Amino acid sequence: MIRKVVILSTGDELMTGRVVDTNSADIADKFYSLGLEVVAILKVGDTKDRLLWALQHGLELGDLVIGTGGLGPTADDLTSEVAAEYFGRPLKMDEEVAAALKRRFESRGLPWTLNNLKQALFPEGAEIIPNPMGTAPGFRVETADKKYLLWLSGVPREMEVMMQDTVLPWIAQASGGGEEVSACAFKIHGLTESRLDDILKPVLLPPEARLSFRAHYPDLTLRLTIWGGKEREKNFSELTARIREFIGPYIYGEGEVTLEEIVGKLLQEKGWTLALAESCTGGYVGHRITRVPGSSAYFKNSIVSYSNESKIQFLGVKRATLEQHGAVSRETALEMAEGVLRQADADIGLSITGIAGPSGGSAEKPVGTVWMGIARRGQSDARHFRFQGDRERVILGASQAALNFLRTALL
Amino acid sequence: MIRKVVILSTGDELMTGRVVDTNSADIADKFYSLGLEVVAILKVGDTKDRLLWALQHGLELGDLVIGTGGLGPTADDLTSEVAAEYFGRPLKMDEEVAAALKRRFESRGLPWTLNNLKQALFPEGAEIIPNPMGTAPGFRVETADKKYLLWLSGVPREMEVMMQDTVLPWIAQASGGGEEVSACAFKIHGLTESRLDDILKPVLLPPEARLSFRAHYPDLTLRLTIWGGKEREKNFSELTARIREFIGPYIYGEGEVTLEEIVGKLLQEKGWTLALAESCTGGYVGHRITRVPGSSAYFKNSIVSYSNESKIQFLGVKRATLEQHGAVSRETALEMAEGVLRQADADIGLSITGIAGPSGGSAEKPVGTVWMGIARRGQSDARHFRFQGDRERVILGASQAALNFLRTALL
Repeated sequence: MIRKVVILSTGDELMTGRVVDTNSADIADKFYSLGLEVVAILKVGDTKDRLLWALQHGLELGDLVIGTGGLGPTADDLTSEVAAEYFGRPLKMDEEVAAALKRRFESRGLPWTLNNLKQALFPEGAEIIPNPMGTAPGFRVETADKKYLLWLSGVPREMEVMMQDTVLPWIAQASGGGEEVSACAFKIHGLTESRLDDILKPVLLPPEARLSFRAHYPDLTLRLTIWGGKEREKNFSELTARIREFIGPYIYGEGEVTLEEIVGKLLQEKGWTLALAESCTGGYVGHRITRVPGSSAYFKNSIVSYSNESKIQFLGVKRATLEQHGAVSRETALEMAEGVLRQADADIGLSITGIAGPSGGSAEKPVGTVWMGIARRGQSDARHFRFQGDRERVILGASQAALNFLRTALL
Repeated sequence: MIRKVVILSTGDELMTGRVVDTNSADIADKFYSLGLEVVAILKVGDTKDRLLWALQHGLELGDLVIGTGGLGPTADDLTSEVAAEYFGRPLKMDEEVAAALKRRFESRGLPWTLNNLKQALFPEGAEIIPNPMGTAPGFRVETADKKYLLWLSGVPREMEVMMQDTVLPWIAQASGGGEEVSACAFKIHGLTESRLDDILKPVLLPPEARLSFRAHYPDLTLRLTIWGGKEREKNFSELTARIREFIGPYIYGEGEVTLEEIVGKLLQEKGWTLALAESCTGGYVGHRITRVPGSSAYFKNSIVSYSNESKIQFLGVKRATLEQHGAVSRETALEMAEGVLRQADADIGLSITGIAGPSGGSAEKPVGTVWMGIARRGQSDARHFRFQGDRERVILGASQAALNFLRTALL
């Protein structure tokens, strides 16, 4: 029975502060939602004695130890070797993994070196955990006293897929299904974490339920989890309804969905095409729209115009408007949106113009001031925003607000 | 002599994945720069036995243990109590801290409860570490065998000030300045991690030196660190020269620098302006260029043209070219770059056109096929690339290759 989990992260880059480890929080979140208890998170550098120390103490504290990192082909990737030594088993080549690695390199025309074969070596008796997103598969070892060591890639997107595809289904089975869990994720726009916490205070939770937040600017997710089987289902739907009562207008989606995916879906439902005119976001809104597979069906183009001249030339903004109201103004935002709509012959046009900083601000229009416009045929609208923080944060915040502005216009 | 450091983080929110811990990376970075070695980072929840476990093992592994969190007034803030128990010393009220706490509450008109006095209790003999940004001061305890436990607030901005004002000056003194460290980061393009490792095999490292890699696609950094004082300086410069001999052409920068910053610097040195024509990257190259502060000095505009029509309309690509060679071809890439150069009246134009996937590929032009063009007045050039992976990865890889293509054209 798996109840207690220890998470290990390895890598010199964690010990020198060059990298903030997000993997362990991600893994802890997933395990917590399955009703397991994370008792410790241990991080050590890529040296043999430290890894051995972490393995030993992890397996003392937990029924299951899950580690990430150190599966690569280079000399400082020691995980398989150290695990083999710890369990007193030889390293063994997995022929299937080796063949797949070789094929992968050949198909890319990359030089094949013996180093790469290192990634096909695992402690004898280990189960392979496939890594569909990368070259380094992980592994699972069962100890004599029915404890488990699992090891995954340290690359976040590879780790996530390995968790989803292999680890979580296996855990659900190995822990006797664990306790049944109902979970719901609300994607939030327009509230800070502490404001959200405040607003939800009156929502009283039964002891078997839990609300948790995850903020990854500009993204904010609220998660409701209820432990227990079918008998809790009524509680669950009552609670989600109650949450919607309090924060409904701030919820833009439910589940693992992005704002750009929702906008894309709305555009497709309407059969509309989109054109963008970006200034301070420099192309980032276009990137977010087009990172969604299939976006070429509704995305026409984006004109990223940094200078006044290019706003006149490519978007037909009037020189008089720029002179009278400035590039960051309601009037310019409207003309940009109307201009790109007309030029691109699209169904809806969105414009963003603002001051991302660190320079360019004034008392009247401080850094973070952004105007956005939306134009449809015969109808347009503009909104003013003020974002806090450095250049990167203004760009991220403006892209999120722009997509949300577009979403509300499409509803 | 303080050489080895262990970082402890405590808090149930770390065990449930609600919070990504940035404190330990921050502390690790500062200690590393002082020449100290962080040997482990241990995180446990707010329970007494786990905290005792972490203290015991931390003090076994390190000369100094630095912890954060659990200094607040609530019942689950156990740090002082557990430390006192671990060292076998009574808890003692610090009268000065108690008086300051009381004043702080009174001056703000906040209710004063006995709970708050808890924050003035410390293990007997501890030195107080002031917390100018918050209510909870930290403390420092010296053990019988000359090891140290330091404890700081878990609130990042409070922790930072406590480090800066008290901890770092004390460490500089207590460790006799620590060992000096020379470090150098090479930013790499065009090599995989394993290929890099292979190429550098013949570079023999003295025992006091270390090479480490950090891959965060599409970014790859190679770091050389040498411990030791002035007498190692010659070794260090010899080693960096040797590394440059082997991988010089793949190094695009040194230190904490991005490809977009280097491109920006080269454009500024030449006094040139840049215009972009993006297709499959959807605006991401424009975003990378414009995330750099001051980029408005050299960035004119980007035309993100997803459809053939917009390539004709905004970039002047010939319909015959698109029909004969397709949108993803040498000819189209060249006409896009030349078109945007002309339209924007810029000094250099860069185009990217390709198939990001997951659909749109063919046997002849599979997903990941990308053509890029660079145009200057009277001179243009195009290159073909083939990227692996999903849509996101093709976009990231293409943006990196595009910026590097631009960089080499500017040299």
